Amino acid sequence: NINPQRLWDSLMETAKFGGTAKGGIKRLTLSDEDRKVRDWFKAQCEALGCTVSVDEVGNMFAVRPGRNNELPPIAMGSHLDTQPTGGKFDGVLGVLGALEAMRTLHEQGYETNAPIEIVNWTNEEGSRFAPAMLASGVFAGVFTPDYAYERLDRDGISFKDELERIGYRGTEKAGAHKFQAMFELHIEQGPILEDEQKMIGVVTGVQGMRWYEVTVTGQDAHTGATPMYLRKNALLGAARIIEAVDAIGQKHQPGVATVGLIENKPNSRNVVPGEVFFTVDLRHPDEEVLEVMEQEFRAALEAALTPMKLAYEEKRIWNSPAVKFAPELIECVEHGADKAGFAFRRMVSGAGHDAAYIARVAPTTMIFVPCEGGLSHNEAESTSFDECAAGAQVLLNAVIEHDRR
Amino acid sequence: NINPQRLWDSLMETAKFGGTAKGGIKRLTLSDEDRKVRDWFKAQCEALGCTVSVDEVGNMFAVRPGRNNELPPIAMGSHLDTQPTGGKFDGVLGVLGALEAMRTLHEQGYETNAPIEIVNWTNEEGSRFAPAMLASGVFAGVFTPDYAYERLDRDGISFKDELERIGYRGTEKAGAHKFQAMFELHIEQGPILEDEQKMIGVVTGVQGMRWYEVTVTGQDAHTGATPMYLRKNALLGAARIIEAVDAIGQKHQPGVATVGLIENKPNSRNVVPGEVFFTVDLRHPDEEVLEVMEQEFRAALEAALTPMKLAYEEKRIWNSPAVKFAPELIECVEHGADKAGFAFRRMVSGAGHDAAYIARVAPTTMIFVPCEGGLSHNEAESTSFDECAAGAQVLLNAVIEHDRR
Ligand SMILES: NC(=O)NCCC(=O)O
Ligand SMILES: NC(=O)NCCC(=O)O
Repeated sequence: NINPQRLWDSLMETAKFGGTAKGGIKRLTLSDEDRKVRDWFKAQCEALGCTVSVDEVGNMFAVRPGRNNELPPIAMGSHLDTQPTGGKFDGVLGVLGALEAMRTLHEQGYETNAPIEIVNWTNEEGSRFAPAMLASGVFAGVFTPDYAYERLDRDGISFKDELERIGYRGTEKAGAHKFQAMFELHIEQGPILEDEQKMIGVVTGVQGMRWYEVTVTGQDAHTGATPMYLRKNALLGAARIIEAVDAIGQKHQPGVATVGLIENKPNSRNVVPGEVFFTVDLRHPDEEVLEVMEQEFRAALEAALTPMKLAYEEKRIWNSPAVKFAPELIECVEHGADKAGFAFRRMVSGAGHDAAYIARVAPTTMIFVPCEGGLSHNEAESTSFDECAAGAQVLLNAVIEHDRR
Repeated sequence: NINPQRLWDSLMETAKFGGTAKGGIKRLTLSDEDRKVRDWFKAQCEALGCTVSVDEVGNMFAVRPGRNNELPPIAMGSHLDTQPTGGKFDGVLGVLGALEAMRTLHEQGYETNAPIEIVNWTNEEGSRFAPAMLASGVFAGVFTPDYAYERLDRDGISFKDELERIGYRGTEKAGAHKFQAMFELHIEQGPILEDEQKMIGVVTGVQGMRWYEVTVTGQDAHTGATPMYLRKNALLGAARIIEAVDAIGQKHQPGVATVGLIENKPNSRNVVPGEVFFTVDLRHPDEEVLEVMEQEFRAALEAALTPMKLAYEEKRIWNSPAVKFAPELIECVEHGADKAGFAFRRMVSGAGHDAAYIARVAPTTMIFVPCEGGLSHNEAESTSFDECAAGAQVLLNAVIEHDRR
């Protein structure tokens, strides 16, 4: 059995790397804080006798040998980066829960058949560098390393420069590191488990998601001297699209649709805004409905902006199709939850996860635990001591079960 | 007669202090670029034998003695600061047109009865530090010097610190420097003169304007895992207010209503926005209608945000009532335009100007010249060689006429 207190202590210890006044974490990928938590993680794994390697996009692999090292390892992985106003559990629980499982194996001298490893995937959040799940995507062959290197944050700084700056551009080719399966423990980030009082979510797949960037161009003008009928107000156009995107989400529930980021120019109190950049995030478990949502979004752009004499550019920058996880791994998770005596239910993930890309190259699944009020991407994100422990225990059980089979 | 080429050359020369790639100027108040243009202006005035003094909020006064220096000076003034994407004429023409008038007097050895002076008012734009017309407001006793000193830009830097940093915190008490009248030359910033093919706008007053700050608070949440019905989307709330504000402007034309500045938090592609700050600018020539616009705006906040379970704070941070200029000065301007042979018409200014505050402490008026398409607060802002010259000539004529009377 895992050690719940040790797990909790590690969660609280690493929460200091980028800890915020409101109890959350701001640890954007490839920042100095990210470097610090990576250094800490590496040291902890090495203390267990694991070998830590880093690939060309900064993914970290900590391997503990098994009885038969010809077998590809069984991986447990998630991410240590966070949102700008992130919580203490999103991603972190998956890595530290895996570390706790590894520590338990080490402590008990438990010998697995295959090697076991922990993976820390780079830039899962996609907040600093879009898209999300970038480096697991490179690992899975969805993106090239160069595509990742060229991603720019909103200040124009590249993924590559930052990866090198923090010293985590490894030499191993992305994807060269093979494993036979991956289990990702994560907080649900939604309200279902809490509502139904289930401790464990057995994740059967991930919904499809698409990201877009839109730039609306009008004309900077004086707010006092420009009559209403002469305006080309880019922010008013953007406001209408924000409304339309929300309506698309409302219409296609359980799909969701959101404008999360907006930049207004020149952003001056007495200037009618001349240019607005914003992003759109559309998701649905059913690809066909997602396609309809996309069409409706594009139609809304045209219908709203053209009559306003606003020009616009729209680009789909990411399309991550709906994913189904591996049945044999799902069974291992159910077996693991059952063995530990936890109530569980199958569910589809609303959030994207590295597991969604890894599923393309290895059997993969996920384990969810509840979070308070379903709240995530929020500094107040909260998963209890017992819930964290339950997740790590089921992760260990599932890995052992898979190794046994 | 003024020298049109010399005026134009000065306009083009100072346009380099903060010149942008698109041919505009970015010379935010109290920036290094502002310091440079102030230094240049001081040197030019001193070369004409003027005495330059600076008051405690950075207003600059360049005085040329008259025949009777017991008489209070006649002032010509405007501002050298610009918007973040400002043009080459807004404010600048008023100061450099005055400089050209002064150079003409000097060159011709013309002796006025009263001393003549040029004023460069600090922070007219109100883009970096709200509100606009801040230092002419202090001069007129509308604001205290401390109120001005405490203004913060969006990075939290104070007016006082920046004023000291660029070396323009003078010792003279604001308002101590008395004058008998002020004429402000400015571009119209609206479309009327161009439409009616009039060279000169004789400005009889300034419309009332009110500025507000609003913070909407919802809840940061995951865009993928948070069902539509559980969201408290602060940006969606802000979008509805942007729409409502525009509708208020449309309804009360010739009034105008605008959201010019918006800041979204955490501003991440996959976070439902939890907090949005934005500003509102309402204007109308009639104070009673402006009052109704304010009431409608406040009602819209309540009607839109409360049902969305969004909290909000709203604060009126500025109220600059409608202003009527001095009839005797208006006549001097008409006389000056007539003498120079330009078509003119009376009009009310849609933009705020230092003259609006100075009118509280001295007889004041303004002279407008056209700008292409009525466009201002835009890098493409354009007033022709001839229009600039016409404005400076009418300014000089009006000042001489007032001095003569
Ligand atoms: N788990 C998680 O928050 N991933 C970020 C990618 C997404 O937006 O779903
Ligand atoms: N003239 C001018 O652009 N003034 C700025 C103040 C305003 O917003 O009207």
